[in-house]
Amino acid sequence: MYTEIIMDLYRALIFDKLGINHQTEGYEMLSFESDYIQGAHEKILSRLIETNMEPLSGYGSDKYCESAKEKIRRACDCEEAEIFFLMGGTQTNQVVISSMLQSYEGVAAAHTGHVSVHEAGAIEHSGHKVLTIPGHEGKIDADELSAYLKTYWEDVNYEHMVFPGMVYISHPTEYGTLYTEAELSSIAKVCSVYHIPLFLDGARLGYGLMSPKTDVTLPKIAHYCDVFYIGGTKVGALCGEAVVFPKKNMPPHFLTMAKQKGALLAKGRLLGVQFDTLFTDDLYYRISEHAIAMAEKVKEIFRGKNRRFFINSPTNQQFIILENKEIEDLKKYVKFDIWEKYDENHTVVRFATSWATSEEDVENLRALIQ
Amino acid sequence: MYTEIIMDLYRALIFDKLGINHQTEGYEMLSFESDYIQGAHEKILSRLIETNMEPLSGYGSDKYCESAKEKIRRACDCEEAEIFFLMGGTQTNQVVISSMLQSYEGVAAAHTGHVSVHEAGAIEHSGHKVLTIPGHEGKIDADELSAYLKTYWEDVNYEHMVFPGMVYISHPTEYGTLYTEAELSSIAKVCSVYHIPLFLDGARLGYGLMSPKTDVTLPKIAHYCDVFYIGGTKVGALCGEAVVFPKKNMPPHFLTMAKQKGALLAKGRLLGVQFDTLFTDDLYYRISEHAIAMAEKVKEIFRGKNRRFFINSPTNQQFIILENKEIEDLKKYVKFDIWEKYDENHTVVRFATSWATSEEDVENLRALIQ
Amino acid sequence: MYTEIIMDLYRALIFDKLGINHQTEGYEMLSFESDYIQGAHEKILSRLIETNMEPLSGYGSDKYCESAKEKIRRACDCEEAEIFFLMGGTQTNQVVISSMLQSYEGVAAAHTGHVSVHEAGAIEHSGHKVLTIPGHEGKIDADELSAYLKTYWEDVNYEHMVFPGMVYISHPTEYGTLYTEAELSSIAKVCSVYHIPLFLDGARLGYGLMSPKTDVTLPKIAHYCDVFYIGGTKVGALCGEAVVFPKKNMPPHFLTMAKQKGALLAKGRLLGVQFDTLFTDDLYYRISEHAIAMAEKVKEIFRGKNRRFFINSPTNQQFIILENKEIEDLKKYVKFDIWEKYDENHTVVRFATSWATSEEDVENLRALIQ
Amino acid sequence: MYTEIIMDLYRALIFDKLGINHQTEGYEMLSFESDYIQGAHEKILSRLIETNMEPLSGYGSDKYCESAKEKIRRACDCEEAEIFFLMGGTQTNQVVISSMLQSYEGVAAAHTGHVSVHEAGAIEHSGHKVLTIPGHEGKIDADELSAYLKTYWEDVNYEHMVFPGMVYISHPTEYGTLYTEAELSSIAKVCSVYHIPLFLDGARLGYGLMSPKTDVTLPKIAHYCDVFYIGGTKVGALCGEAVVFPKKNMPPHFLTMAKQKGALLAKGRLLGVQFDTLFTDDLYYRISEHAIAMAEKVKEIFRGKNRRFFINSPTNQQFIILENKEIEDLKKYVKFDIWEKYDENHTVVRFATSWATSEEDVENLRALIQ
Repeated sequence: MYTEIIMDLYRALIFDKLGINHQTEGYEMLSFESDYIQGAHEKILSRLIETNMEPLSGYGSDKYCESAKEKIRRACDCEEAEIFFLMGGTQTNQVVISSMLQSYEGVAAAHTGHVSVHEAGAIEHSGHKVLTIPGHEGKIDADELSAYLKTYWEDVNYEHMVFPGMVYISHPTEYGTLYTEAELSSIAKVCSVYHIPLFLDGARLGYGLMSPKTDVTLPKIAHYCDVFYIGGTKVGALCGEAVVFPKKNMPPHFLTMAKQKGALLAKGRLLGVQFDTLFTDDLYYRISEHAIAMAEKVKEIFRGKNRRFFINSPTNQQFIILENKEIEDLKKYVKFDIWEKYDENHTVVRFATSWATSEEDVENLRALIQ
Repeated sequence: MYTEIIMDLYRALIFDKLGINHQTEGYEMLSFESDYIQGAHEKILSRLIETNMEPLSGYGSDKYCESAKEKIRRACDCEEAEIFFLMGGTQTNQVVISSMLQSYEGVAAAHTGHVSVHEAGAIEHSGHKVLTIPGHEGKIDADELSAYLKTYWEDVNYEHMVFPGMVYISHPTEYGTLYTEAELSSIAKVCSVYHIPLFLDGARLGYGLMSPKTDVTLPKIAHYCDVFYIGGTKVGALCGEAVVFPKKNMPPHFLTMAKQKGALLAKGRLLGVQFDTLFTDDLYYRISEHAIAMAEKVKEIFRGKNRRFFINSPTNQQFIILENKEIEDLKKYVKFDIWEKYDENHTVVRFATSWATSEEDVENLRALIQ
Repeated sequence: MYTEIIMDLYRALIFDKLGINHQTEGYEMLSFESDYIQGAHEKILSRLIETNMEPLSGYGSDKYCESAKEKIRRACDCEEAEIFFLMGGTQTNQVVISSMLQSYEGVAAAHTGHVSVHEAGAIEHSGHKVLTIPGHEGKIDADELSAYLKTYWEDVNYEHMVFPGMVYISHPTEYGTLYTEAELSSIAKVCSVYHIPLFLDGARLGYGLMSPKTDVTLPKIAHYCDVFYIGGTKVGALCGEAVVFPKKNMPPHFLTMAKQKGALLAKGRLLGVQFDTLFTDDLYYRISEHAIAMAEKVKEIFRGKNRRFFINSPTNQQFIILENKEIEDLKKYVKFDIWEKYDENHTVVRFATSWATSEEDVENLRALIQ
Repeated sequence: MYTEIIMDLYRALIFDKLGINHQTEGYEMLSFESDYIQGAHEKILSRLIETNMEPLSGYGSDKYCESAKEKIRRACDCEEAEIFFLMGGTQTNQVVISSMLQSYEGVAAAHTGHVSVHEAGAIEHSGHKVLTIPGHEGKIDADELSAYLKTYWEDVNYEHMVFPGMVYISHPTEYGTLYTEAELSSIAKVCSVYHIPLFLDGARLGYGLMSPKTDVTLPKIAHYCDVFYIGGTKVGALCGEAVVFPKKNMPPHFLTMAKQKGALLAKGRLLGVQFDTLFTDDLYYRISEHAIAMAEKVKEIFRGKNRRFFINSPTNQQFIILENKEIEDLKKYVKFDIWEKYDENHTVVRFATSWATSEEDVENLRALIQ
C-alpha cells in the first residue's frame, strides 16, 4: 500500500531527522542488564504506525498475521508449518507444553532449564511436572536422556510415576550455549524412539542462529523439532513469540487453549505486524547478527583484560567471573546481571548484548574495564 | 525530557505531514465490527517511539509504569491504590479472580457476563466456578444477589457447594448498559454484608465514564469496588488493562501469580508507557468522549430511519434489530457484529464505535442506511 | 475356597446367632435421612472377613477385582467392557469427566445435576466448566440438548466459548426420576450426532433398575452410554463405584489419572471384594428391589394420609410436601432431609429408603404419620 | 453399647471358633511384598460389623469419627488438635499440601520423597511444584534445608521462582529410616525461621513409633510438626489416614477442599470406626510393635546368612542386596519388592513386614534363605 520510498522517507523523518532515539546516549546508565531493556526495532515501530488505523479483525485473524506466518514458513523452509503468535516466553512455554501433554505426562528438561527454575512454577501450575535431567552448561545430553527414558519405562511401577511426555530444550540455553546439529539430531532420535515430541525454546533463537559457531539453521530446527518458538521479545520486538508446529501437529483448538490461559491477544495485529516486519528482508537475522558482533567485542574486552569466563558462550550472553570488589565499582557505571556466587571473593556476572546494543555502548564499557 | 513543542512538532511530522493514518479512508471496508479493530492512539505511538531506546528494567519495574500508576491513583482520587498492568481482558479476569478467591470459592456473575460465556472457560480452567445469577440487559440486581447469597448460606449443605467468594460485574456491560451509582452502591453493600469483594470489569470503562447518562465516576468506582480494571485494549491502547486495588488489598505476591499464568510481560514498559500516556492530559477521557459522540450519531442515524433498538445503550455499543434482508445488503459495505437471532425475519446486530471512529466513518454509515 | 455351607453357617453365627445388627432397632432414632446412613450388606462384610488375610497385590490388580469385573461384564451383557473401581460419587464424576474431556471442553448437564450443584465445584476444580441446560424433574430433554449443541456450533465465536465435550445425566436423577429407554436412546442419538460421549451417573443405579416403572436395563445402559458407573456406596457397599466403559473406550492410562487425583486405593481389594459380592447371585438387584418395595410403602403411607407429592418418583427417594408445623413435630421422631421451601407454610422433604431399610422402620414411620 | 464380654465372645465366634482367616496359610504364596497386602486387623472388622446397621449421618459427622478424634488427641497429648480422615496416602499428601500452600508456593522435599517420585505427579496436578533437596537415605538435613531456603530468599529474582511454602518429610522414610528427635527439632526450627509449615507424612507412622531405635513419640511429632498424618492403610486398616493439625491451624473449609478433590467419603463412619478401634487399648501401637518384631527377625535371618544390607533400617522395611541369581530362585517361593539395581550381579530388594505378618511367615522365609 505504501511504496518503499515513502516508507524510507517516513522512517527518516521519524528517526533520523528528529535525531532522537537512535542511541541510548543521555539515558541514565549504560546497561548490559539483559536483552529486553529496550523497546522495539525502528522498522517494527514504523510498521505499527503505518498499519495503525487500518481496521482489522481480531484474535490473530488479520492479514498481517497471515503474511507473517507465510514468511516464517518460508524462513523455515517448511510449507506446511502451522504458526501461532503468543506474547512472552513463560506464557509460550506454558501454553505449548500444557496443550501437547496428556494430564498424566510431564516434560523432561535440564535442571537449569528456564521451565525448571525461572517461570514461577508456570508448568506445574498448569498441572504438569518438570522432570529434571542433568544440564551441562545448560544443555542436555542425548545419552543421558535416553538412559532416563529407558529407566522410566523399565520400572515396573511406571504407572505410578509421571510419564515423560515431551522433551524441552532451550537454544541458545540459559547459559548462552548452543546445540550442534549432531546433538540436536541425537536428541530428536531419542524422542522419536520414545514417541515424544521435542520442544525447542527459542526465546533467543536469532542470537543462536547468527552465532559464528553454529551449524544449526531455522530449517534444520524445523526438521528436528516437533514444536519450537522464534523469540521476538528478546530479538527486536516489543513482545511476541512465534510458535511453529512444523509437522501438521498443532493440537486441535490451540486457539481456544491459548484463550483459556489468557494468552489470546484481542489486537492480534500487534504480533502479526511485528513478526511480518522481522521476517521481511532478513531483519530478524540482521539484527541478531549485530548483537552477536557486539557480544564478540564484549568478550574481547574482558579477555583482553584477562578476566576469566565462566562459560565459553558463542551467543549474546557472556558470563564472566569478576572479583566482588570490581563488581561493586562497576555497578556504579554500568548495569549487568549478577548470576551466581563463584567463590568467596568472586561472582559470576552476565553481560548481555542485543539488537539494540550500539558500538558506543560497547566502547563505553571498554573504557570501564581496566 | 522532550518539550511539548517538540512533541507536537514530532507528532505533526509523523501523522500530519505524511498525511497518513489519520483515517480509515482507503481501507478495504468501513467497519463498526468492534472497538478493537484499530491500533493505538497516535499519542501512545509517539510516546512508545520517544521512549523506545531508553534502557529500562523489566517486568513492570520501570519508571513509566511508576508514573502511570501515580497518574491512575490521582484519577481515582485514591492515594493508596495498588495498580498492576496486564495484557488483555480474559487474562485480567482470570488472574484477578483466581488470585483473590480461595480454592473452594467461585465468582457470582450475570449469566450473560463475559466471564460466564465468552472466555473459553478461563475461570473454570483456573479451578473456579462461575456462579450465574440472572442478568438484566447485562446487569445484576442487588436484591437478587442478596437473595442468592442468603439462600446459599442458609443451606445446611453449603459446605458441599461452591462458596460465593466474589461478585463480578462489567461496566459498561456486554450490552452497553451502565450501573447507576445507586445500583453500584447497593451491590457493594450486599458484598460487604457477606464479606466478599466486588470486582468491576472495566474493559470498556472509558466509554462508561464518558456516557452522558452516567453518574458514576472513577473515584466512585474506586470507592465502591474492591478491585476493578481500566480497559486499555478497547480504549486507545495496543493492549493492556490496568488493575486497581483501591483498598490496600492487592493479594500478596500478585506479580508471581501473574507470572505463573504467563501474564507478566518482560517489557513491562509497553504497558507503562501506554497507560502513562492515556492518563496524561485526560487523554483516556477525551478519546472515550469522542467514541460516545460517534455512538450518539450512529444511534441517531438508525433512529432517524426508524430502526428498532434491542437495548437502549448509553455507551459505544449499539444494538439494533434489523431485517435479515437488510443485513445481507449492508454486509457488502460495512462490517458489524451479528449478535443474536431476534425472530424469523430479524436479527440483533451490534455497531461499535471507538476512540478511532471518525466523523467520516459515521457519515459513510449514514449514507448506507436508507 | 469356602463352601456355601460354611459361609451360611458363618453368617448365621455372625448375624443371626448373636442377634445383633439385623435392625436399626435400639438406635437413637428412626432415620430416612439418606441412602448412605448404614454400613454394608452383611454378605459384603462376610466376604471381607473371609478374604481378609489373603495376601493380595495392590491398586486393583488382585483377583477379586478381576472377578468383579468379569461379573459386571456379564451383568452388562458386554464382554468387552472395561471397568475401574473408584471410591465415591464426586470422585468418580471428577475422574471420569476430566479424563475424557479435552482441556477446552466442558460437560453439559441439567442445572440440577449433582455435578452442577452438589460437588463443591469438583468439576471446575479439575478445570472444566459445567454447561447447564434446563432440568425437568432432574432430567434433560433430547430436543433441548440438541438445540443447545446446534446453537453452540453455529455461533461464529464458538472458539471463544467452552466446547460441549460430553453429556452428563444421572439415572435415577437427584429427584428420583428415571429416563425411559426411548429418552435415553434420543439423548444418545444427539450425542452421537455431535460426537460427544454420554456419561450416566448411576450413584443410585440399582434403585433405578429395580423400579417397577422402568424399561431400562443394565445392558441397555451399556448399549446407549459411552461411560457410566454402578453405584455401590448407596446400594449396599461401604464405599465404591464401578465405572464401566462399554466400548473399548477407557482413556489410556486411566489408572495414572486416577492416582493423580488421589483416587487410587492401595488396598484395591476393598472395592473388588465388595463388587464381586454385589454381583454374585444378583445381590445388587435383590437389595435394590427391597429398597424399592420399602419406598412404595412409604409412598403409600403418605398418600394414604393425603399428603401431596412434590414429584412422582418411581425410585427410593420420595419427595413430599409437608406443613412446616408437621415437619417440626416429625423431626423429633424420625430423621429425613429438608429439600426446599415450597411456600410460606410448606416445605418439600425427602424420605429415602435403601437396601438397609427394614419393614419395622417403615411401620414405625407409618405410626408417626397421622 | 455392647459390653466387652459380648465383644470378646463375638470376636471369638467370628475368628477363633470358625478357625479361619487367622493366618495366611493356604494362600497362594508367602509374601513380604509390601505392608498393604492384607485386609484389616480383626478388631477393626469386628467393630465395623457391630456398628454396621446403626444409622449415622454422613461425611465424617458421626459419633465414631468424633470418638476417634478424641482418642487421637489424647494419644498426641494435644487437646486442641484438629483431625480429618482421608482415604489414602497420595490423596492425603495432595489435599494437605494443596490446601496449605498459596498458589505461588511449592513444597520442599527430599528428591526421593514419595511426593517427589511415586505419586504420579499428584502434587503438580494440584498446581504446586515439588522443590527437591538432597535426600540422605530418605532424610533431609536441616542445614541443607536452611541453606536452600537462605539461597532462595537472597536471590534478587525470587519472585520469578516458586516460593518454598512448606517442608515435607516422611517418617519412616521411603527407605525405612527415622529422624531423631534432635533432627526433627532442627528441621522444625528452620521451618519456623522461614515461617513455613512442617508436614510429616506418617503413612507408616506406627512402625516408626514402635522402632526400638527411636526417641520420637506421637506427642513430640505433634509438638514439632504443623501437620502430619497417622497412616492407617499400612498399619492395620482397610484404608484411611488421620490428618492431624496440632496447632489450631487446619485451613478453613478443609472439608470443602477435600470434597473438591473427591476425597470426602459419604460413609465417613468407615474411617471413624477404624481409627476409633486403632486408638482403643493401644491397638495401633501393639500391632506396629508386632510388625517391628517380625522385621527384626527378618533382619536376623538375612544377617545370619551373611547377606548385605543396603540400608540399616530400624523399621518394617528391610533393604537387602541379593545376587540376581538368588532373586530368581527366591521369587518362586516368596513375593518381595525389587527396589533398584545395585551392580551388574546384584539388586536391592525390599522385604516388608506388617501388623499381619505371622511368626509362621517369618519361619517360612527363614527356611528359604540358605
